[in-house]
Amino acid sequence: MKKLLFTPGPLTTSDTVKQAMLNDVGSRDKAFIEAVKYIRSEMLTLAGVSKEEGYETTIIQGSGTFGVESVISSAVGVNETLLVLANGAYGERIVKIAQIHKINHLVLRFEEDQIVDPEATAAFIAEHPEVTHVACIHSETTTGLFNPIKEIGAICKAANKVFIVDAMSSFGGVQMDIKGWNIDYMVSSSNKCIEGVPGFAFAVIKRSELEKCKGQARSLTLDLYEQWNGLETTGQFRFTPPTLSLMAFRQAMEELKQEGGIAAREARYQQNKQVLDAGMLKLGFQFYLKHDIQGHIITSFLYPTDTNFNFERFYSKLSERGFVIYPGKLSKADAFRIGNIGQIFPADVEALLKAVEEILAEENVLLQMQSS
Amino acid sequence: MKKLLFTPGPLTTSDTVKQAMLNDVGSRDKAFIEAVKYIRSEMLTLAGVSKEEGYETTIIQGSGTFGVESVISSAVGVNETLLVLANGAYGERIVKIAQIHKINHLVLRFEEDQIVDPEATAAFIAEHPEVTHVACIHSETTTGLFNPIKEIGAICKAANKVFIVDAMSSFGGVQMDIKGWNIDYMVSSSNKCIEGVPGFAFAVIKRSELEKCKGQARSLTLDLYEQWNGLETTGQFRFTPPTLSLMAFRQAMEELKQEGGIAAREARYQQNKQVLDAGMLKLGFQFYLKHDIQGHIITSFLYPTDTNFNFERFYSKLSERGFVIYPGKLSKADAFRIGNIGQIFPADVEALLKAVEEILAEENVLLQMQSS
Repeated sequence: MKKLLFTPGPLTTSDTVKQAMLNDVGSRDKAFIEAVKYIRSEMLTLAGVSKEEGYETTIIQGSGTFGVESVISSAVGVNETLLVLANGAYGERIVKIAQIHKINHLVLRFEEDQIVDPEATAAFIAEHPEVTHVACIHSETTTGLFNPIKEIGAICKAANKVFIVDAMSSFGGVQMDIKGWNIDYMVSSSNKCIEGVPGFAFAVIKRSELEKCKGQARSLTLDLYEQWNGLETTGQFRFTPPTLSLMAFRQAMEELKQEGGIAAREARYQQNKQVLDAGMLKLGFQFYLKHDIQGHIITSFLYPTDTNFNFERFYSKLSERGFVIYPGKLSKADAFRIGNIGQIFPADVEALLKAVEEILAEENVLLQMQSS
Repeated sequence: MKKLLFTPGPLTTSDTVKQAMLNDVGSRDKAFIEAVKYIRSEMLTLAGVSKEEGYETTIIQGSGTFGVESVISSAVGVNETLLVLANGAYGERIVKIAQIHKINHLVLRFEEDQIVDPEATAAFIAEHPEVTHVACIHSETTTGLFNPIKEIGAICKAANKVFIVDAMSSFGGVQMDIKGWNIDYMVSSSNKCIEGVPGFAFAVIKRSELEKCKGQARSLTLDLYEQWNGLETTGQFRFTPPTLSLMAFRQAMEELKQEGGIAAREARYQQNKQVLDAGMLKLGFQFYLKHDIQGHIITSFLYPTDTNFNFERFYSKLSERGFVIYPGKLSKADAFRIGNIGQIFPADVEALLKAVEEILAEENVLLQMQSS
């Protein structure tokens, strides 16, 4: 059964993206090297920057977190200090990476239902001159909020701090200005808004910062500089790449272009989100986040208070009907998540809503209707 | 153009293996969790061991080297010492991993055209009682030789050392006795002799050793124990897995069964190797390795001495005809490599040989004929 994934990725991809994986390619063969070259160049274009402006790209095998660990463990030197701005599980994951690598670090925490506050960040940085790098999540997939990257970037620039942004679940689905927002490192992954299949992470990096990473990495495979250096000098990966995931990604990049680029994709995701919000509100569901900080990538819905609601059954029944949603990850509230990204269109969201309504009726779950 | 890969992997896979990637799957969905469970169970079966006998499996996103780094950086504790037995680039890669992680280590080196000598190893271990772990490559893809893992395993057992085997390019294509050879850690990857697509590494590990890794890892994503613990307790990956590479791998495991298991696959690879050897010998090529230490996974052939031979042109012309071979990696000799693994059959090897012969004629390369 073909299922639609309403998840933050791996997500629903087009048939043509998957079909791009139907031919074997040699990892050191010219055809593949050409594909990788195209992909890396296109990454810069999508990021709105260029080599001439001093930006570079690299690709790291594994999941998004492999990319984040590669950046954090390569970028922050032994005598430097990382400030992690955390308001969810992905911020905490960066803290864990810093701990494991014994990287000097400080953490400025906010509640999960609050965005990172730029003023508090500026004050914290002023109090801690030892901070050299600042890391923040753009779209915190834990809840679905968007952190104010532009404002934090301006603060980093003013204070001369290196700014690392985990834009895992947003890059490609949200217009962002890497240069204007003063982002030095932007990390994302193959299976998010570019709508490829899983297999690798990638980063867009200011070359002047990347060069400082040389010899600083704390692992062989996650050495950000050497990974870039290999791709740059030989066009090849140091270690076997997920060849077919890359071929799928090249196709996904083509399809993003055909859709009209990031602006058009963002508009579609926002439309999905509007349909979802209106429908879920009508059914009586409550949002976890306040509307003004909620992003259009993924939404957290609180469990209905009716004791007839059982998430496992709700999830399974949706899955049986071909709709895969996502469990919650909040530390202090019971919620589930529904993503709007991937090859999902408003009609698909309508179909999902219909299935949700049917299942609530089957399960005798009563929701308190909103007065809106 | 569909190409046949005569490489050590990524290799030629069946159409049905690639077609298993045509449906999106959720990384936290039951269907995927079931697939991962099957794959992990089947890995033990292929390794000829079981949970009851105290063996476990885990999967690490990325390439084979990510798996090797995960094992080395998780298995060897701060007060322990690793002995690396090196006779090629892959042994040296383990040395590099140990260096980067500042793991106490010693290296016993052999020439690239020599196997690791068990007697020399036993003597070295006797002289260095601080050694706690011994690492060795089974099929050294640098040259194609097979190291005597059984004999080295017996030495490790007698001396009470933990034995780590990188069986990257051999597992699934060579019958091995994990238990009888006293292998504590065996690492391989998705895109080798099981004939899946690239995307992950995996390890079969003695549980008593795996448990010692707890809290010892030097990285978040490459934490071998936690990766296993996550799969074992929730059935899910800690971080996004290459979902479709895993679906392809499940199909590849089915096809390995249909072929008759590892013994039948080994026989096919050996037959490919015989056809290749006879044909290349007839054309006048020289082998880099002596016959008795040469494995049946990949073969290194010395460049012809005729100055008309240009590897780049030879490679490109073969590639244009649909045959992808592999460059050399020797430190002291010019050679190229031809693999026998993947969905390659004797008739394919015959076709490759015919193409080689044609290209040599086109390029006016004269080879000194062997007297055999």
